[in-house]
Amino acid sequence: MTQGRPLRVAMIGYGFMGAAHSVGWRQAPRMFDLPVPVEMAVVVGRNGAAVTAAAQKWGWAESATDWREVIGRDDIDIVDIVTPGDSHAEIAVAALAAGKHVLCEKPLANTVAEAQEMADAAAQAATRGIRSMVGFTYRRVPAVTLLRDLIAEGMVGRVQQVRAAYRQDWLVDPAMPLAWRLQKEHAGSGALGDIGAHIIDMTQFVTGQTVDSVTGVLETIVAERPLQGEGSGLSGTAAEGFGQVTVDDAAIFTGRLSGGALASFEATRFATGRKNALTIEVSGDKGALLFDLEDLNSLQFYDRTAAEDRQGFTKILVTEASHPYVAAWWPAGHMLGYEHGFTHQAVDFVAAIADGTDPHPSFAEGLSVQQVLDAVERSNENDSAWVRVHVPAAASV
Amino acid sequence: MTQGRPLRVAMIGYGFMGAAHSVGWRQAPRMFDLPVPVEMAVVVGRNGAAVTAAAQKWGWAESATDWREVIGRDDIDIVDIVTPGDSHAEIAVAALAAGKHVLCEKPLANTVAEAQEMADAAAQAATRGIRSMVGFTYRRVPAVTLLRDLIAEGMVGRVQQVRAAYRQDWLVDPAMPLAWRLQKEHAGSGALGDIGAHIIDMTQFVTGQTVDSVTGVLETIVAERPLQGEGSGLSGTAAEGFGQVTVDDAAIFTGRLSGGALASFEATRFATGRKNALTIEVSGDKGALLFDLEDLNSLQFYDRTAAEDRQGFTKILVTEASHPYVAAWWPAGHMLGYEHGFTHQAVDFVAAIADGTDPHPSFAEGLSVQQVLDAVERSNENDSAWVRVHVPAAASV
Amino acid sequence: MTQGRPLRVAMIGYGFMGAAHSVGWRQAPRMFDLPVPVEMAVVVGRNGAAVTAAAQKWGWAESATDWREVIGRDDIDIVDIVTPGDSHAEIAVAALAAGKHVLCEKPLANTVAEAQEMADAAAQAATRGIRSMVGFTYRRVPAVTLLRDLIAEGMVGRVQQVRAAYRQDWLVDPAMPLAWRLQKEHAGSGALGDIGAHIIDMTQFVTGQTVDSVTGVLETIVAERPLQGEGSGLSGTAAEGFGQVTVDDAAIFTGRLSGGALASFEATRFATGRKNALTIEVSGDKGALLFDLEDLNSLQFYDRTAAEDRQGFTKILVTEASHPYVAAWWPAGHMLGYEHGFTHQAVDFVAAIADGTDPHPSFAEGLSVQQVLDAVERSNENDSAWVRVHVPAAASV
Amino acid sequence: MTQGRPLRVAMIGYGFMGAAHSVGWRQAPRMFDLPVPVEMAVVVGRNGAAVTAAAQKWGWAESATDWREVIGRDDIDIVDIVTPGDSHAEIAVAALAAGKHVLCEKPLANTVAEAQEMADAAAQAATRGIRSMVGFTYRRVPAVTLLRDLIAEGMVGRVQQVRAAYRQDWLVDPAMPLAWRLQKEHAGSGALGDIGAHIIDMTQFVTGQTVDSVTGVLETIVAERPLQGEGSGLSGTAAEGFGQVTVDDAAIFTGRLSGGALASFEATRFATGRKNALTIEVSGDKGALLFDLEDLNSLQFYDRTAAEDRQGFTKILVTEASHPYVAAWWPAGHMLGYEHGFTHQAVDFVAAIADGTDPHPSFAEGLSVQQVLDAVERSNENDSAWVRVHVPAAASV
Repeated sequence: MTQGRPLRVAMIGYGFMGAAHSVGWRQAPRMFDLPVPVEMAVVVGRNGAAVTAAAQKWGWAESATDWREVIGRDDIDIVDIVTPGDSHAEIAVAALAAGKHVLCEKPLANTVAEAQEMADAAAQAATRGIRSMVGFTYRRVPAVTLLRDLIAEGMVGRVQQVRAAYRQDWLVDPAMPLAWRLQKEHAGSGALGDIGAHIIDMTQFVTGQTVDSVTGVLETIVAERPLQGEGSGLSGTAAEGFGQVTVDDAAIFTGRLSGGALASFEATRFATGRKNALTIEVSGDKGALLFDLEDLNSLQFYDRTAAEDRQGFTKILVTEASHPYVAAWWPAGHMLGYEHGFTHQAVDFVAAIADGTDPHPSFAEGLSVQQVLDAVERSNENDSAWVRVHVPAAASV
Repeated sequence: MTQGRPLRVAMIGYGFMGAAHSVGWRQAPRMFDLPVPVEMAVVVGRNGAAVTAAAQKWGWAESATDWREVIGRDDIDIVDIVTPGDSHAEIAVAALAAGKHVLCEKPLANTVAEAQEMADAAAQAATRGIRSMVGFTYRRVPAVTLLRDLIAEGMVGRVQQVRAAYRQDWLVDPAMPLAWRLQKEHAGSGALGDIGAHIIDMTQFVTGQTVDSVTGVLETIVAERPLQGEGSGLSGTAAEGFGQVTVDDAAIFTGRLSGGALASFEATRFATGRKNALTIEVSGDKGALLFDLEDLNSLQFYDRTAAEDRQGFTKILVTEASHPYVAAWWPAGHMLGYEHGFTHQAVDFVAAIADGTDPHPSFAEGLSVQQVLDAVERSNENDSAWVRVHVPAAASV
Repeated sequence: MTQGRPLRVAMIGYGFMGAAHSVGWRQAPRMFDLPVPVEMAVVVGRNGAAVTAAAQKWGWAESATDWREVIGRDDIDIVDIVTPGDSHAEIAVAALAAGKHVLCEKPLANTVAEAQEMADAAAQAATRGIRSMVGFTYRRVPAVTLLRDLIAEGMVGRVQQVRAAYRQDWLVDPAMPLAWRLQKEHAGSGALGDIGAHIIDMTQFVTGQTVDSVTGVLETIVAERPLQGEGSGLSGTAAEGFGQVTVDDAAIFTGRLSGGALASFEATRFATGRKNALTIEVSGDKGALLFDLEDLNSLQFYDRTAAEDRQGFTKILVTEASHPYVAAWWPAGHMLGYEHGFTHQAVDFVAAIADGTDPHPSFAEGLSVQQVLDAVERSNENDSAWVRVHVPAAASV
Repeated sequence: MTQGRPLRVAMIGYGFMGAAHSVGWRQAPRMFDLPVPVEMAVVVGRNGAAVTAAAQKWGWAESATDWREVIGRDDIDIVDIVTPGDSHAEIAVAALAAGKHVLCEKPLANTVAEAQEMADAAAQAATRGIRSMVGFTYRRVPAVTLLRDLIAEGMVGRVQQVRAAYRQDWLVDPAMPLAWRLQKEHAGSGALGDIGAHIIDMTQFVTGQTVDSVTGVLETIVAERPLQGEGSGLSGTAAEGFGQVTVDDAAIFTGRLSGGALASFEATRFATGRKNALTIEVSGDKGALLFDLEDLNSLQFYDRTAAEDRQGFTKILVTEASHPYVAAWWPAGHMLGYEHGFTHQAVDFVAAIADGTDPHPSFAEGLSVQQVLDAVERSNENDSAWVRVHVPAAASV
C-alpha cells in the first residue's frame, strides 16, 4: 500500500507520447503497489485550449502553458518531458536545477552537445538526491528485461554477435507529405535517431556492453515529398509544391562492442510491410536469445548446452508471474501491450525516487546512445570508414 | 468530448475480473471519446476491509458491502457484475428491476434456468430502455471484430467448417489443490463452462449462426486432488487429505451450426504448454479466417479468389487505424493487450446506453451459450449421442 | 557396402504412389548402406503401353500386365502393392502365399474383413520367414520417428491428451468433378479412410497405445458433383450431369486410448487453405510434443520439467546427424522432403528382411487402423454413440 | 519422352557436393521429361579405391582417377565439376577447350583472376555452342524462382531495399578443429565466399540488378583452433597443437545495387542456433517478398496495393502445380527438400543444351559474384570504405 506525501507529476508536452506517458502514470498506482502515491498534477503545452482538452481527456488535474512557471512550483516533484527532442535539454536542465526529478523521452537530445549538458546536469543533481531517467521504454517490456537477465546469468555465454533491426514502412508511400520529422533542422535525424536509437540502447542494455566504434551508411530513398500546405511551417524552397527530405530514410551500420563482438544494425522506414519490426538476436558461445517487438510477449532462447538432438529455439511466453513485471497483471498467457512499458517505467522511476537509488537508463546512458548516433553520421560522411564513438566530434575530422 | 450527467458505475465483486473491469472503466474515457462521462462510483464486496483496499487500489470512489443497498441507490446507473457465476442471476435480476443497466461477466449463469430468468428480465427491462450485456470480451479484440466483419462482408463465402479450441494447462500438475473451481456445486462446470463458453460464443458471434445440436464428451483427467486446508470451504469427504474433482478437465464436442456446417470444439486445462491458446478457424467456399488469442494482434486470412499461384494465409497485423477500435490507441504495429477488450466493452456499453440501442452480446446471447453448454453435458451423459440445443432439458432425457 | 544376391522388387500399380515408391527403391541403395542390394525388377499394370512407359520413366527393368504371373516368378523377392485399396487383399494374400515379402500401401484394405484376412495371412507367412509391412510412410519422417522416441524415453510422461488433425482443401471447389474417390463402392470411404487413417496410425505409433473406442460424425459437405463425362465409369443416376457423392468429405471423431487418454481427430478435405496439414500434439504430465507435416523437418517439444521461467515450445530442427535417418543425407539445416519417407521405408523393409525381423507397421497394425475406421463409421450411423473398436461389427448394433 | 543420343556426364570430384549432384543426375530423367536422355557415365577422383566405391554407391557406370583423360574422351558430353574451388579454373577451362558442356559448383573460383579466365573461356566456347553454368542451385528452389518471377512481373514495384543474411553456427564450438576450410591458402575465404556468395547471387538473380559497390567488414571470432593431427596437411606453426584461422568467420557488408537501392548482407558461421538460415527480403514501393531457406517450400508476399485493412504477409505454399518445377513432383502441400534444386539444375542444363540456349547462372554471373566478394575484402582492408565492384583490384588501392 502506498503512503507518504504523494509525488506530483508535471508532464511537459501532450502529443502521442503524452498519451502513452499518461497511461503509465494512470495505471502505475492501480496495478502495482507503489512505495509512494503519485498524482497527475499538471500537463503543459503552448496551446492553451488544446492542452486543457488534453488534461481533461487524460485525467491531469490541471493544465498550464508556461513550463518554466510549472517547474518552479513547490508542489511539483517530477517533471516528465515528452516534447520534441530539440527542447529536451533546456527543459531538463532547468527542471533538474529546480530540484525536480526528471523523466525525459528518448532520444535524450538532438545533439551530442545537448545530451552532454543534460548528462552533466543529471550527474550534478544526483549528488543532491535528484533522479533522472531516459524513456527507452522497450527496456521494460518483460521479454526484454528477461533477455537482459538471462544474458547476465550467463545463459548465452560470451556474446559473439548481435543482429538488430528496427524496420517500419510508413514512408514507402511517396505521397506521404514532408512532415517536420523529415527535415534535419527540426528532427535532428531520421530513421537513425528515431528508431535506430532504440536498437542501440537495447543492445547496450541487454549485453551490458557499449558500442565503441561504428561504420555505417545513411540513405534518403525518397528525396522530395509534397509540402503539407500553409500550416506546415517547413523551411526550404518548394518549387511546384515539393520540398527536400533532409534526414535519412534508412540507416545501416555495424558496431564493435566493448566486449569485442560485432553488432549489425538496420533502421529503416522503408521496409514494406513491416510496421514496428524491432528484432534483436544475441549469439553467444553457450546460446542465443531473440526478441521481436511484433511478438511482444515472447522471447526465444537457444540453449547450446542442451542435449544435442533436442536443441532448438524455445519460444518462452513471457507471461508467467515469475517473469519481470508480470505478477502485477494477468494470469499466464494473457498478453500485455505496447503501453505497459510506460507503466513499468513510471513504477520503476517512482521506486528509484523512493529508494534513493539511480534509475536506468540514466542520462549518461542516453548520452551514450547519442554518441553512437553521432558516430554513425560521421562515418556516413566519411565514406563509411570506421569512427570511434568516444572521440569528440571535433577531433574526429 | 463527453458531456451530460455522468453515468455512475457500481461494480459487484472484486476478484481477478474486478481488476480487468476496473481497467476498462478507467481507460475508456481517457482513450476514447465517450458520448457521456462515466464515473467509477462504488465497488461492492462482502469483506469490508478487502473491498475498501480494492476501491483504493483500483480507483473507485467508494466501497460497500451490501450489493442490494447499492443497486437501490439513485446515483447508480450501471451495475457491473464480476462475482462468481452462481450469484449472477440474483444480482442481475434485482439490478434490472431497479432500473440499472447491467453488464454481467460470463458465463451468464451456472444453469440454463437461471440464464433464462436473466434473459427474460433483460428483455422486459429493454422495453423500459434498460440495457444489458454479457462480458464475452474476446468479441472486442480488434482481430476478432475484424474476423466477424470480414465474414459478414462475404470474404469466406458460405461457412463450411469451423474448428475452435481453447487450451490451457494449469491443471496438469496433479499437486494443484482442489479449488472451488473444481467442484461442481460451486463452479457449475469445469473447462466446458469456463473456457468452452468462450469458443461457443465466438463461433456464434463471428459466423452469425447458432449451434443447434451437439455431440460431446467430458473428461476428468485427475480425479482426486489435495485439499487446500481448513479454509478451503470444500464439500465432500477427504480421506487422507484428498478430495474428488467433480467437474470436467476437458471437453471435446462437435456442433451443427444453423447454417448447416459442423464445428469442432475442444476446451481443456490439460494441454501441456498451452497457456491461453484460444484458436478459431472458419473455412468457407471463398476463403478462410484464423484467429489465435496468443497472437492477439493478428488475423490470418486465406483468399481462395486470389490468383492461384499466390494464394496463402495472409497475416494481417490488426493495428491499423482503419481496424476496429484501433484508432483510439497507438500507431500501426504497436500491440494491444488482454485488458484492452475490457476498455472496448465499457466504451460500447456506454455508447449503447447513450444511443438507446441494445448492445451485444445480449443476455439472450448469453443464454444461448448456456444452452449449448447444457446440451454438451446432456450428450456426455447419454453416451455422446446428439442432443438438440433448444429442446428443454427435462424433455431430452 | 551391400552384398549377397540382390532382392528383386515387383511393384504392382503405377499411379501417384508408384512414382513415390519408385523414388524410394531408387534412392535407398544410393543414399544408405543396405545389407543386401535391391533391384527394381518389374512394374505391373493392366494397360500395357502405359505401364511400359512408367517402367522406362521410373527405371524399372521390365514391365508386365499380369500380376499373378509376376508374383509366381522365382526371381522376384519383394512385392510392392500400390494399387487402389480394393485390390490389396487379393494381391497381398496371393503374394504372401507365393512366399514373397509384401509391402502394401495404406490403407491396408477397404474393409475390416479384408484387412483381417491379410493380417492372418501375414501372421502365417511370418512363421515361414516372410515379411510384410504397411505403407504408413509418415512414421518414417525423421521428426515423427523422433517424436515416438522421445515419448518412449518418457519425455512427455504419462500421455493425457492427444489432438490430431489432417486437413486438406482440394474439394472446396464445388466444380471439382465426381471422381471415383468420391463414390463409396470404389473408394470405401472418403476423408476418413484416406487421411483419417494416417492420424489414427500416427497416434497409435507415437503413443504405443491403441484407440479402443470412438465417437464420431461423418459429413458430406457437397453432396452432388458434376460427372466427368463418358469415361468416368461412375455408377449412379446423373440427372442433369450431376452425381451423388457417397463418401464423407470430413470426419470428426474422438477416441479413447488404451492408456486412458482421450484423443481428438479431424480429417477433412474442406479446410480452405490447408493443403496437407497433418498436425499431432501429444500432451503428457511432463511435457508435450507437436508435429506439423507442413513444417516437415521440425518437431516442437515442451518440457514441463525445465526451469519455470524459461519453459516454452522448443522448435527442434530435425536435421542433425544424430536424428533418425538423417546421417545418410545432408548437413544440419538442409531440408528433407515428402518422398524421403519412401526411401526410409524401403531401407527399413530391406533391413528387416536381411535381419529376419518383423518390420513395422505390420499388417496387424494396418488391421488395427481399419478397425478404428470401421468403428467411426458405426458410431456415425448410430447417432455418434460410443463404439468399441474391437467388438465385431455385427455385435455392435 | 526423351530421345536422341544420350548426354553422358562425367563428374569430377566426389565429396558432399558429389552426392548432391548425383541425386540431381539420377532423378532428373525419372521425374521430368527431358528432351534428351542423360547417363551417369563416370566419376573422377584421385583416390582410386574411394572413387570406385563412390561410383558404385551413387550409380555411376565407371570411375576414373585422371580428369584430363576423362575430359578428352569422345563419349563424354557434360563435365560436372564438384571439386574444391582452387581447381575449378583449370578443369573448367580445359573441359570447355575440349568441347564439353560444363557445370561448375559455386563459387566459380577462389580469385577474380581465375573467375575471369573461366568466364572468358565460357564466352568463347559459347560461340561454338558449348554451354556452361555455375551451381548456384538455390536459384532453383521453386520459392526462389517464384520470387524472381514475381519481382519481374512488378509485384513489388521499384526495389528500394534488400535485406539478406546467411547464418550458420557450426563454428561456435571452439573445439572444432582447424579444417582446410579455415585456412586462406586452401579455401580462399571463409563465410564470405562459402555462404556470402549465395546471398550475393540470389540478390542479383531475384532483382535482376548487380551489386555495384560495397562497404563491409570481415571478422574472425575464434582466431586459433586445435590442429586435427598428423594427417591434417595444414600449414602454419602449431605451438601447443593450435593453428591460426586465416579466413573470416563472419562477413557483414552493404551493397549498392545498380538500380540504386541499398542491400544489407550478413554471412556468418557463428549465429548460434542457426543451422542453414538463408533469408532474403526485397522491399519495393508496391510490395515485399521474403524467402527463408529453413522454410524451404514457402514464399511470403506483402501486397501494398491490397485493401488497406487486409494487407499482410501472405505465406504462399509453393507446392502447387502452377509453381516453378512443382508439376513434376507431388500434389499440393507435399514438401520438397534440399536436393531437389540439384535435380532442377540438371533438368535446366540439359534443356539448355538441347535447345541451344545459354543457361543461367552463366560463368559471367559467377564472375560477378566473385568480383563482389573481392570488393568486400578490399573494403575490409581499407577501414570499410566503399569500394566499386568493377574497378580492377590493382586500381582500387
